[in-house]
Amino acid sequence: MQRIIEITTDKHEGLYDITSEVKTFVSESGISEGIVNVYAQGATAAIMIQENWDESVQTDVVNLLKKIIPRGVWLHDRQDGNGDAHLKAGIVGPSETIPLVNGKLGLSTWQNVFFCEFDGPRQRRQVMVTVMSG
Amino acid sequence: MQRIIEITTDKHEGLYDITSEVKTFVSESGISEGIVNVYAQGATAAIMIQENWDESVQTDVVNLLKKIIPRGVWLHDRQDGNGDAHLKAGIVGPSETIPLVNGKLGLSTWQNVFFCEFDGPRQRRQVMVTVMSG
Amino acid sequence: MQRIIEITTDKHEGLYDITSEVKTFVSESGISEGIVNVYAQGATAAIMIQENWDESVQTDVVNLLKKIIPRGVWLHDRQDGNGDAHLKAGIVGPSETIPLVNGKLGLSTWQNVFFCEFDGPRQRRQVMVTVMSG
Repeated sequence: MQRIIEITTDKHEGLYDITSEVKTFVSESGISEGIVNVYAQGATAAIMIQENWDESVQTDVVNLLKKIIPRGVWLHDRQDGNGDAHLKAGIVGPSETIPLVNGKLGLSTWQNVFFCEFDGPRQRRQVMVTVMSG
Repeated sequence: MQRIIEITTDKHEGLYDITSEVKTFVSESGISEGIVNVYAQGATAAIMIQENWDESVQTDVVNLLKKIIPRGVWLHDRQDGNGDAHLKAGIVGPSETIPLVNGKLGLSTWQNVFFCEFDGPRQRRQVMVTVMSG
Repeated sequence: MQRIIEITTDKHEGLYDITSEVKTFVSESGISEGIVNVYAQGATAAIMIQENWDESVQTDVVNLLKKIIPRGVWLHDRQDGNGDAHLKAGIVGPSETIPLVNGKLGLSTWQNVFFCEFDGPRQRRQVMVTVMSG
């Protein structure tokens, strides 16, 4: 079963928690065991499993990636000025595949599913969620 | 089919080879073709496919991540002092999905499955393994 | 259903677009909904989803990884001199799992599937593609 989650991003770079949307779909799918694939459709976005105690780790992720992958120094910047966003998206990766256990996402207490925006703000980002029965 | 592999880690940071445990479960599942999802439940741990000729690459992984993601300079450190561990876990990622071919893990000769500890030692770490029939 | 895609690489490091080969197999599988796992068998190679407008981003990926993970400074280099290749492969990761939607790969317009060579040239690299019905 598949569902598209749509997100509006309001920052140039930021992590957006989509755990509750993914959980809702998993619950509605009625599938009890298997895997859930969460896939960001967009070459300047990504999916990351990360802690959600407060905003600190999300900000740390953005700052870490800015330090490792600075803006404005890439060949691709001659095309559309967002070479850093493509590199961040490629390194983090567009998807995560999570176990589905007893009808629930097999995340641990502090794991949440985040959509990573690297070239926003964007009116409409799409994440494809696929629930596979085991 | 799903099984939890439990691991005790004895270092603050280190890679632990869990290939044989994953292979045992795959063999016992009786499934011959599909995929195997290996997922670390813990926001300061990860799964990495890496060489296992000797200890050298595992040590190199720990040292590389220490250099890229230093300790003690993150916003999250005000909470519980392990901001670097969360960032390492997020960048490496909690899971790998591996093909299951002719009843065996489709790893190449030098590929092994490692649990990455970034905030140990821990008495009990859990890795959920899900075998999906194709 | 599974198929091996074979690739010859002509550079020491480079990204090779295998999207069309993956799409051909997906089409021939006749499966309309599910996921597609693309897995590089080799501990010095990886799979990355990345833009393919021109060659710029692929070159940027190689240069970024060279900067973060320099050559010749790793413990593993005493074995076979390719410690950097193993680290790059481990960080990028050997696989991507992509949704299969209406019989097609659920990539967005600018997302392509790349084989990443980090220790070439190689006569014969293998990528295992597994199509799973949802």
